[in-house]
Amino acid sequence: MVKVGIVGAGRIGRVHITSIATRVPDARIKTVADPFITRETEEWAKTMGVEHTTKDYHEIINDPEISAVLICSSTDTHSQISLEAIRAGKHVFCEKPVDHDVKKIMEVVKALEGTKLKYQVGFNRRFDHNFEALQKTVAEGKIGKTEIIKITSRDPEPPSADYVKVSGGLFLDMTIHDFDMVRFLADCDAEEVYVQSANLVDPAIGEAGDVDTAIITLKMENGALAVIDNSRRAVYGYDQRAEVFGSMGMAAVSNDNQSTVQISNSEGITGEKPLFFFLERYMDAYGKEISEFIDAIVNDKETPLGIEDGLKPVLMGLAAQKSSQEHRPVRISEIMSEEGL
Amino acid sequence: MVKVGIVGAGRIGRVHITSIATRVPDARIKTVADPFITRETEEWAKTMGVEHTTKDYHEIINDPEISAVLICSSTDTHSQISLEAIRAGKHVFCEKPVDHDVKKIMEVVKALEGTKLKYQVGFNRRFDHNFEALQKTVAEGKIGKTEIIKITSRDPEPPSADYVKVSGGLFLDMTIHDFDMVRFLADCDAEEVYVQSANLVDPAIGEAGDVDTAIITLKMENGALAVIDNSRRAVYGYDQRAEVFGSMGMAAVSNDNQSTVQISNSEGITGEKPLFFFLERYMDAYGKEISEFIDAIVNDKETPLGIEDGLKPVLMGLAAQKSSQEHRPVRISEIMSEEGL
Amino acid sequence: MVKVGIVGAGRIGRVHITSIATRVPDARIKTVADPFITRETEEWAKTMGVEHTTKDYHEIINDPEISAVLICSSTDTHSQISLEAIRAGKHVFCEKPVDHDVKKIMEVVKALEGTKLKYQVGFNRRFDHNFEALQKTVAEGKIGKTEIIKITSRDPEPPSADYVKVSGGLFLDMTIHDFDMVRFLADCDAEEVYVQSANLVDPAIGEAGDVDTAIITLKMENGALAVIDNSRRAVYGYDQRAEVFGSMGMAAVSNDNQSTVQISNSEGITGEKPLFFFLERYMDAYGKEISEFIDAIVNDKETPLGIEDGLKPVLMGLAAQKSSQEHRPVRISEIMSEEGL
Amino acid sequence: MVKVGIVGAGRIGRVHITSIATRVPDARIKTVADPFITRETEEWAKTMGVEHTTKDYHEIINDPEISAVLICSSTDTHSQISLEAIRAGKHVFCEKPVDHDVKKIMEVVKALEGTKLKYQVGFNRRFDHNFEALQKTVAEGKIGKTEIIKITSRDPEPPSADYVKVSGGLFLDMTIHDFDMVRFLADCDAEEVYVQSANLVDPAIGEAGDVDTAIITLKMENGALAVIDNSRRAVYGYDQRAEVFGSMGMAAVSNDNQSTVQISNSEGITGEKPLFFFLERYMDAYGKEISEFIDAIVNDKETPLGIEDGLKPVLMGLAAQKSSQEHRPVRISEIMSEEGL
Repeated sequence: MVKVGIVGAGRIGRVHITSIATRVPDARIKTVADPFITRETEEWAKTMGVEHTTKDYHEIINDPEISAVLICSSTDTHSQISLEAIRAGKHVFCEKPVDHDVKKIMEVVKALEGTKLKYQVGFNRRFDHNFEALQKTVAEGKIGKTEIIKITSRDPEPPSADYVKVSGGLFLDMTIHDFDMVRFLADCDAEEVYVQSANLVDPAIGEAGDVDTAIITLKMENGALAVIDNSRRAVYGYDQRAEVFGSMGMAAVSNDNQSTVQISNSEGITGEKPLFFFLERYMDAYGKEISEFIDAIVNDKETPLGIEDGLKPVLMGLAAQKSSQEHRPVRISEIMSEEGL
Repeated sequence: MVKVGIVGAGRIGRVHITSIATRVPDARIKTVADPFITRETEEWAKTMGVEHTTKDYHEIINDPEISAVLICSSTDTHSQISLEAIRAGKHVFCEKPVDHDVKKIMEVVKALEGTKLKYQVGFNRRFDHNFEALQKTVAEGKIGKTEIIKITSRDPEPPSADYVKVSGGLFLDMTIHDFDMVRFLADCDAEEVYVQSANLVDPAIGEAGDVDTAIITLKMENGALAVIDNSRRAVYGYDQRAEVFGSMGMAAVSNDNQSTVQISNSEGITGEKPLFFFLERYMDAYGKEISEFIDAIVNDKETPLGIEDGLKPVLMGLAAQKSSQEHRPVRISEIMSEEGL
Repeated sequence: MVKVGIVGAGRIGRVHITSIATRVPDARIKTVADPFITRETEEWAKTMGVEHTTKDYHEIINDPEISAVLICSSTDTHSQISLEAIRAGKHVFCEKPVDHDVKKIMEVVKALEGTKLKYQVGFNRRFDHNFEALQKTVAEGKIGKTEIIKITSRDPEPPSADYVKVSGGLFLDMTIHDFDMVRFLADCDAEEVYVQSANLVDPAIGEAGDVDTAIITLKMENGALAVIDNSRRAVYGYDQRAEVFGSMGMAAVSNDNQSTVQISNSEGITGEKPLFFFLERYMDAYGKEISEFIDAIVNDKETPLGIEDGLKPVLMGLAAQKSSQEHRPVRISEIMSEEGL
Repeated sequence: MVKVGIVGAGRIGRVHITSIATRVPDARIKTVADPFITRETEEWAKTMGVEHTTKDYHEIINDPEISAVLICSSTDTHSQISLEAIRAGKHVFCEKPVDHDVKKIMEVVKALEGTKLKYQVGFNRRFDHNFEALQKTVAEGKIGKTEIIKITSRDPEPPSADYVKVSGGLFLDMTIHDFDMVRFLADCDAEEVYVQSANLVDPAIGEAGDVDTAIITLKMENGALAVIDNSRRAVYGYDQRAEVFGSMGMAAVSNDNQSTVQISNSEGITGEKPLFFFLERYMDAYGKEISEFIDAIVNDKETPLGIEDGLKPVLMGLAAQKSSQEHRPVRISEIMSEEGL
């Protein structure tokens, strides 16, 4: 039985509390820490079997009974709490991104060196039933050698300008999931990134210094080309599709719906919109990623996504930012040089 | 070059004129006969290469240059004109049904005996790209031994009560196409028919003594079960689907659309309605059936649908009428006995 | 907090144990009773929070702390245990069917009279996301007045002949779910049933006195026609679809898949088979039905399916058996007369 | 009645001969010219109603009875024969591209100035039922303001290296159709092009100095972003899809199939591959473009695609070539400057 501490009781923290309570029999949540935890959340946590709640996450770090920490706090605290947890000898599951600053991620890399601690980054989409089936199809060679990867990733509604300002921008906040996905599907890293982007959805996003619409072209190390298209607003809902094209065929996945109902009437034949947003679409995936993290601890396996899987999409995101600003293709190696890697 | 005469210049007559003019290079239309032909139709026929128009179909029967007659006049004239054409030594393509009266069909059967004349009945749906592909799939054994056949056949809008009165009723007018289809897909005849029917669409149809909604269950000679569902009104358009289920799988065909366009918006994901009605859905099939008729003449082959294919669906229709009236399953052999076959 | 006892720890019993443990926070399982319970199941039950296991279900009936009983034992014990539980003042959730014998169901009806006890029958498919969405669409009037209902229900593989012998036969064992579904979708009862059936899948089923393939036509009290097609073996998996056609359109639901992945290659474009069988397809539905049962108790609501919903499909099944044997349409009222209702 | 001369009796020339013969009643083909015309083609042409065949296209240019010329000869002759036909006072339909050399296209532009002659370029895909429906949907404002356009365009099999050498390369030979399509869907011109391309399909194509796989990103004048992905080999057939995403939704079109048949078996659920190649997919579109050309002449309308629609995709193709070579985004204005426009 793995005793777990969870830092952060916001939306994602509560998702993980629910997953562990209902579908991870090998883990128990000892403590949930959140400086702004409400009475309501505390009471709900108890019904979920959480033993203890606190405002101070150091209670988790300092608790010798707790062997694994889930970091679900705000992004700017991820790398610091990761370091503290690792130094206290705890396994870590950290929500994405580990940090926007490569140097801080590298500190986590170094802290892990020589330890036997498990570290997993929260790129939940790899555990989605559709993307998992797509990756498996490609990995089994069913479409031959991969030549083109296409990812569509569109949010149902734009974030507030306030959020945009602290988010790290489209590429580190939203596209970062797609950068992880392209690595997952291609089974290799990107060599180069080119961005064509625009502010078409909400002028406030442009005023906050960000873009909301983008087409990102990538050259992968295995020679395949890839393209991601992003929008902050798809009025028909959360649009999360991918297609991998190769020498022997194509594999593609589409969205999930609440039901398969189709209505035929004088207007046409109408099916449902995709599931609204990430909580609806990826609830199962969130459960699976935590199950695999606990499984890695219990059975001493590698986690499915290590710290390097936290680092690489950030490098891609920084290359995308630079491409967008300087309006030219940018190589990942250029970003690595700048960062002294 | 086969010289053709066409009796009837109504909707279906004009379809066949167009087909021959544009896609049957081995045939030429010498004469079109219709007692009510308009000046407008006459002029249009000329642009389609028709040499001559007349009000009297005997000009066709008596013309030694004409070797093939297409009978597209009203149903009550089909068997009589068939007989005259056969006796004049002409090949005949006859629109469905040959007659509602089995005895009159049997006269045509007898007239054909001992001749080398080609006779084809106009069950156009066998030539539809979807039903053709479905039949081929089944015939090639891809779904194993056939166990269940399901046919959905719904018109977009009900006929007038006046038409209903002279139509022979739902089973001889509309379901007759589906009776042919079930024979085509099963590759055998029906043994027994049971009908559950109702007047749900238009009370005027009920007042005219007919039904407009029906579920027809059949037992086929090869042991398979079949079911047809009919409605005189599908507000979303002409609904023509079929499914064949067998020991090794299932094959199914759906409707055709004008385009594949799909619109995703805040209401859902909407595709087009099926093509409106038989002229839209089966235009190609009408062309193909005539090509095959001419091909049978030119190359001395059997026609794809002989006179027995005109007879059998009428027997099934009569069994259906009796089942509907007497509210019990009716065997085809019972109808045959009654008709002295 | 509702304290629950579960009678039967077979496949369905374990499904309900899991559901209550992981998704019904308002219920706790005090006791699980099964005369053949294994050590393995006992241990697993403990990890699911079950307090106590026993071979004797009377421990549940006699336990004043337990207020609700889930009956998941073999069919022939359902009505008897229902009676005992009701007499002990307990709410009852009973797996389908309550009994094959109408008289025994009527005893349960009578036992419930005058009590405030909740009784729910386990027709799980009503809680499936697809059928729920379909029923809602129809109930909201989106397709107008219902005219035709079509249900396809095919199992992936036939049961053993041994099972068939004690099952009550196709109509009471398998079609009974579809009889419930047609009542759910039509929102009324059936008036008449006609069956065309055959033994096409496995000769052993025929030798056991049963059929394995059937087309069942129904006339509903609201005038709509309905048709169910059943097969004991669809090699492509569990096929559970429905279509409701009405004066203003059609609503239809198709199967669920493990993922949306589609592979395009030189053979064609291939998607996944439907989820294999009822445990895969209806796992969520099983959870929902138990949640609603507990909710009915906690909040003193009507259960979504009462004892009459257990009775009616049995009457339809008996009518179907009679129709199959006597080869004629059979009215429900005829069965009711025979049963003295 | 428009008398037409056709220059070139290769694959596309024969397509146009068939279209005019079977579906353009207002036009008649007087002469077909081809220096390599075979006896077989001559005989076939006669059955199609062609009055005369010759090896010398000047017979067409010099024939005062012929008022319209269709240029279906090899690409390097398009602009020269266009000039000769215009100077002889004839309307011109010219297969794509008018020329690879902008200066030669500009000569045609100038030759047309001040005349009332019709000139149409053969971008047939605009007349495809799917793309036509998509463009109409967008033009009617159903998806709001366009933000992202995605075009997938993949050939079923790569051309020979010999063809590649004279083809003008991927961007002027194959992508040029997609450049036209993006202008059609966006209803404006492109501002900038960026290409990421590779030689992944056939090394012989690389040795011939060309690429066979590409992702082309465009910025359109209306602010929308666009992306085209091309491959010279999709083993599953001709893949021609498009998607337009906007502020109020998305519209998308998929491929056409020979039939809707779907086979469900133990392997999965399999539908047909897309229609094999352009002759299968676009046969109707070829007929429609010629009908519209003749209609423009007969009714003195503008042709749906003028000479500027021949010029613009070539500018885009040249920008794409430069982007591919210099590995940077290239503005259309830069190409125009170089060409003195």
